Amino acid sequence: MVNWKNLDTLASYEELLKTKKVSLPEVMSGESGAERVRKYSVPMAEGFVYNYAAKQVDDEILAVLAKLAEEAQLVDKYQVLYNGAVVNTGEKRLVLHHLTRGQLGETVQADGVDKRAFYVEQQKKIAEFADKVHEGKIANGAGEKFTTVVQIGIGGSDLGPRAIYLALENWAKKQNTLKMQARFISNVDPDDAAAVLDSIDVAHSLFILVSKSGTTLETLTNESFVKDALRNAGLDASKHMIAVTSETSPLAKSDDYLAAFFMDDYIGGRYSSTSAVGGAVLSLAFGPEVFARFLEGAAEEDRLSQNKNLLENPAMLDALIGVYERNVLGHMCTAVLPYSQALSRFPAHLQQLDMESNGKSVNRFGEPVHYQTGPVIFGEPGTNGQHSFYQLLHQGTDIVPLQFIGFKNSQMDTDVVIQGSTSQKKLCANVAAQIVAFACGKPDENCNKNFEGGRPSSIIIGEQVNPGSVGALLAHFENKVMFQGFVWNVNSFDQEGVQLGKVLAKRVLAHETDGALKEFSGLFQI
Amino acid sequence: MVNWKNLDTLASYEELLKTKKVSLPEVMSGESGAERVRKYSVPMAEGFVYNYAAKQVDDEILAVLAKLAEEAQLVDKYQVLYNGAVVNTGEKRLVLHHLTRGQLGETVQADGVDKRAFYVEQQKKIAEFADKVHEGKIANGAGEKFTTVVQIGIGGSDLGPRAIYLALENWAKKQNTLKMQARFISNVDPDDAAAVLDSIDVAHSLFILVSKSGTTLETLTNESFVKDALRNAGLDASKHMIAVTSETSPLAKSDDYLAAFFMDDYIGGRYSSTSAVGGAVLSLAFGPEVFARFLEGAAEEDRLSQNKNLLENPAMLDALIGVYERNVLGHMCTAVLPYSQALSRFPAHLQQLDMESNGKSVNRFGEPVHYQTGPVIFGEPGTNGQHSFYQLLHQGTDIVPLQFIGFKNSQMDTDVVIQGSTSQKKLCANVAAQIVAFACGKPDENCNKNFEGGRPSSIIIGEQVNPGSVGALLAHFENKVMFQGFVWNVNSFDQEGVQLGKVLAKRVLAHETDGALKEFSGLFQI
Repeated sequence: MVNWKNLDTLASYEELLKTKKVSLPEVMSGESGAERVRKYSVPMAEGFVYNYAAKQVDDEILAVLAKLAEEAQLVDKYQVLYNGAVVNTGEKRLVLHHLTRGQLGETVQADGVDKRAFYVEQQKKIAEFADKVHEGKIANGAGEKFTTVVQIGIGGSDLGPRAIYLALENWAKKQNTLKMQARFISNVDPDDAAAVLDSIDVAHSLFILVSKSGTTLETLTNESFVKDALRNAGLDASKHMIAVTSETSPLAKSDDYLAAFFMDDYIGGRYSSTSAVGGAVLSLAFGPEVFARFLEGAAEEDRLSQNKNLLENPAMLDALIGVYERNVLGHMCTAVLPYSQALSRFPAHLQQLDMESNGKSVNRFGEPVHYQTGPVIFGEPGTNGQHSFYQLLHQGTDIVPLQFIGFKNSQMDTDVVIQGSTSQKKLCANVAAQIVAFACGKPDENCNKNFEGGRPSSIIIGEQVNPGSVGALLAHFENKVMFQGFVWNVNSFDQEGVQLGKVLAKRVLAHETDGALKEFSGLFQI
Repeated sequence: MVNWKNLDTLASYEELLKTKKVSLPEVMSGESGAERVRKYSVPMAEGFVYNYAAKQVDDEILAVLAKLAEEAQLVDKYQVLYNGAVVNTGEKRLVLHHLTRGQLGETVQADGVDKRAFYVEQQKKIAEFADKVHEGKIANGAGEKFTTVVQIGIGGSDLGPRAIYLALENWAKKQNTLKMQARFISNVDPDDAAAVLDSIDVAHSLFILVSKSGTTLETLTNESFVKDALRNAGLDASKHMIAVTSETSPLAKSDDYLAAFFMDDYIGGRYSSTSAVGGAVLSLAFGPEVFARFLEGAAEEDRLSQNKNLLENPAMLDALIGVYERNVLGHMCTAVLPYSQALSRFPAHLQQLDMESNGKSVNRFGEPVHYQTGPVIFGEPGTNGQHSFYQLLHQGTDIVPLQFIGFKNSQMDTDVVIQGSTSQKKLCANVAAQIVAFACGKPDENCNKNFEGGRPSSIIIGEQVNPGSVGALLAHFENKVMFQGFVWNVNSFDQEGVQLGKVLAKRVLAHETDGALKEFSGLFQI
């Protein structure tokens, strides 16, 4: 039986507050630093390593974090979750995204079916459909192959699949496995859809409408936009569209779509990249085998997160170090800094995943909490960021903990040697250098050139951005966020904070406003 | 004579700390809210309006902010700056980016020339060159027109020009003024250059190498990359490349380039979008007339920033409200939320502009300051963000002040009516609704659905994203950051914080490391 308790009621949290702080410039210098890099390192899925040598922890703090993991029953709660308990208490729902990539525990029955079997069935249906599209058996009205797939969705139906597509697009080109190019339409801004439609050949494009409820305003609006474009091109829209939705949605059995693939209420948008939401677009773009490989990477990380030993469970360790930084050291933000252009939109996905999951002020029972919860997440790829906002990270008045991600090998394997090294080596040298610069700093008599150091970072190092590694990386962060939600005792799976704006926007469009809202509407001439 | 004083030595700052806090749910409700929206509004350049009704200020606080503006001599310092004083004290340089768009004050002589005349001369040279390219008088080896322009640069040579290009690309398509498509290569990650080169027709591409010193490692590396690609395609690289650099750089007179256009040490990278750095790529992409229109928008805002009346100087007002939020209310971040897909990369540019300028812990004399300086800046376009990180903004445990940007009209003028309104109206309705939702909140007995409100925002409202408005918007934020730097008494024009990482990266590549750095290098097999 698990107990859901607030962080500030836990004895290990009290103990954590009393631990001695670590001075990074001290411990990361000389042989002590080298020793930490060797020791504070844990293997992850898919050949990744999570290295936390430059985090402000030591054996004593790690021991208390291990107690906290135990007292907060983090792995037990994970088990309860994947075994089908109603962990999303606000919406009274199960939380089953892990089952899209494997059966971690007991069989989970819901809606009268085995949910793992249900997700696998959708994967198979998508795979069969994608194969037929690639073979030209499902083709446009003129019998020609589709060359482009366009995902119409917003939030979780957009950010995750888009980040993953961009991560693998060039890898796939290099492997000759890019079956279709993918594009994404998300914003209700009409210029978003117009620009995407302007840049593709609609006659050879297949559109995926992604909406669980079938009622998301942005997505339905963009669907109309696309249907207009198809009609204007003299095409039959129903031959160019498929739907990813829930079985009970109005879209599920509509003749407007070539096919419909299903998701359900047990997978939130931001956790849906491994469901049909990511499955359809990624299988069409890269082929079902690539999508399956991506799921394997995620599954391997999911199994690793079952480990009760904190030092052998990288997602839980990453989570707890984050809690230490947030609730003991008092840092408000975390920057995610992938040294890989392929991961250019991965920080935007993590921003959603983390901030939408844990940006809460009440616990899972709806009671206000009296400690900080989810941090602000932002980031851009390195080395670009080094020439931009790193100034503040190095010398600003606040400390921002950092999460680096780096890879030994490039995707496209085209490189040049300048000043004795390849670009890939330069990229790796830069991230290694940054970790030490942030941790150790460098004293200078000229205060303007002085680096205090003491700025904590961790790094995830992998071989290459490829389907398996992207899956593992995604699952690592999903599980990190989940563990942090457990520690903070919040419900990481609802999002009530997005509702009020929707209600008020409807009121504006219905001209049912007064006061400030009426005046603002007037400024926009609504 | 201006006096450079720390914020915490100013009497008006002491007074500001003692002002009574404003309760947004209170003042923004009912008729009081409507009154604030009408009253707390100031015209900007190019038809924009800056509305700060939903900021946590009132007449009393505004009066003290006006005193602070006067005591800190903000407009006087701006005047000193554009009249050519050595305001970048760290690097002992003038700060002259305003002169690229107009002569605001006295003639400024440096390096033996009139600097305004120098910048205008570069603009003319670029315009002549661009016209010849567009007419086909300057063409590739086969005498064919160039169709694509590729900017090779990083940091300020990338983020600003890229954000502006993306802001205007679809506008230009709609106006039939897109002369060449533009692409950007920035990251030392070899996959960045490889992917861009893979996506263009190199035989019809013109490359712009942008490096002030001619020594930026990323840029020189990517130049080699591009030259290899040109050679492999059997092309003469020198017929496909131009340089934007300083007159004293090794690139300035090299035969490797078709032409060279000049910038100088008085314009920092992040302020260089209106110099030759932005001028070359934007004039080639859109035509010199469009670039000139963009400069006019910036110039109009620059003149507005000369106004000593705080309530008629939107950049200074925005700056001081930001200081109030940072130093009195204690907020660490600011989110920039443009409701326009065209401005998708504008937040990334502002992130650099702001964080690299004011992320400092020492004042302009190199002495440590004892107050917070530049905030963390992040953001994504709305409505996308509403389905993502807005959850934390609405209900998280920390308050993040918000900067909305919205437009009455779309760029492409293609729209659909769904549920009685166009997409553009929906977009505008959403941003209006968000302001009120954040400010007023909405009580609910169910704490999970409760919105406390009290989350401050301002909004900049314009007619459309077009050359003039983008220029004005850019200058507004440049001048806001400058005024904040004056208040904090920091040097907003150097970036010593990016140096240490460079030095250490070189050491890694030279294998001159020990301790933690050696171990990290080992993890990457360097």
